[in-house]
Amino acid sequence: MECGLLFSAGKDSSLSALLLEEFYDVTLVTAHFGFTDDWKHARDAAEALGFPFVDIELDGAVADEATERMYEDGFPRAGIQQVHETALETVAAEYDVIADGTRRDDRVPTISRAVAQSLEDRHDVDYVAPLSGFGRGAIDRLVETHLTVESGPSETIQKGDYETELRERIRNRWGEKAVTEVFPEHEQTRVTGRT
Amino acid sequence: MECGLLFSAGKDSSLSALLLEEFYDVTLVTAHFGFTDDWKHARDAAEALGFPFVDIELDGAVADEATERMYEDGFPRAGIQQVHETALETVAAEYDVIADGTRRDDRVPTISRAVAQSLEDRHDVDYVAPLSGFGRGAIDRLVETHLTVESGPSETIQKGDYETELRERIRNRWGEKAVTEVFPEHEQTRVTGRT
Repeated sequence: MECGLLFSAGKDSSLSALLLEEFYDVTLVTAHFGFTDDWKHARDAAEALGFPFVDIELDGAVADEATERMYEDGFPRAGIQQVHETALETVAAEYDVIADGTRRDDRVPTISRAVAQSLEDRHDVDYVAPLSGFGRGAIDRLVETHLTVESGPSETIQKGDYETELRERIRNRWGEKAVTEVFPEHEQTRVTGRT
Repeated sequence: MECGLLFSAGKDSSLSALLLEEFYDVTLVTAHFGFTDDWKHARDAAEALGFPFVDIELDGAVADEATERMYEDGFPRAGIQQVHETALETVAAEYDVIADGTRRDDRVPTISRAVAQSLEDRHDVDYVAPLSGFGRGAIDRLVETHLTVESGPSETIQKGDYETELRERIRNRWGEKAVTEVFPEHEQTRVTGRT
């Protein structure tokens, strides 16, 4: 079965791909808005991992709505959740199985059982989240043995998904200060291949 | 890393083993009470799947407490949950990683994020539930392509885990009628090998 896995070049979506590759024909799918070329980092990581890659361009209106929400909230969570759900809906139109790298300990994005079943019923797909039964420690140990990664502050490690573009969008509309208010500095990782 | 996966010879724990085998040294572990020889069905299924197998005998007092609870409730859920958690605690003493076949759509047993983290902290293990991000449809489709199964009413398909023994215990103490009251008739499956 054809599985479209939402892919950011981060360790969660990369490890998810390894968990699913024996069971599905996995294509790594990166959703972006076409504002920047950062999605190409995801394409490079997908190639290094040995998976087929597709990028999908979401409507810019989704980015506007999400960034306005983030700016009002002062937190990225609700906006990220909105974009993630839109990306899943878009991928669901094209594959038998859709997947993402959400983990047991994630605060955002999270796909509840109700949202998962709604996606499955409306699009006649299976939604699978292979890491949702794995905690942070288990994931870190599997990443260490199976993937090579670069890590650093979120400004220097540009991943391939929409987060980089959302930061850019906020910077353009409300200035640099808004970016650091909405997105607290955190360590990012980008996957560069398999061990 | 050494992973002890709770195994009943059913399709969920069998599929979990296949999902984990590329990542851990998986041993299938069947918990029972030593009342009957049904655990040997699990040993046979483990051999057919090609995994190392261990059986562990839980204290009979756990079965007494669980069956009293089930008989009082008129439902098996709380008692099953109690036995499952006891089995996980026991396995946690012996392995780096403990696992089970709980699914996204399961009502029982379910291991909440809080219980999972408590297990991990107290025993210094990772707890992983590889099917907790898979719904019923996805699991059925993967079972169909990867496993051979026998199915039938729960009386004729004897699986290898503690459920058969708990039914037997209830039958001995309160009679056949109590068994059918506590355990509604349902379709059981026993895995016989890989496709």
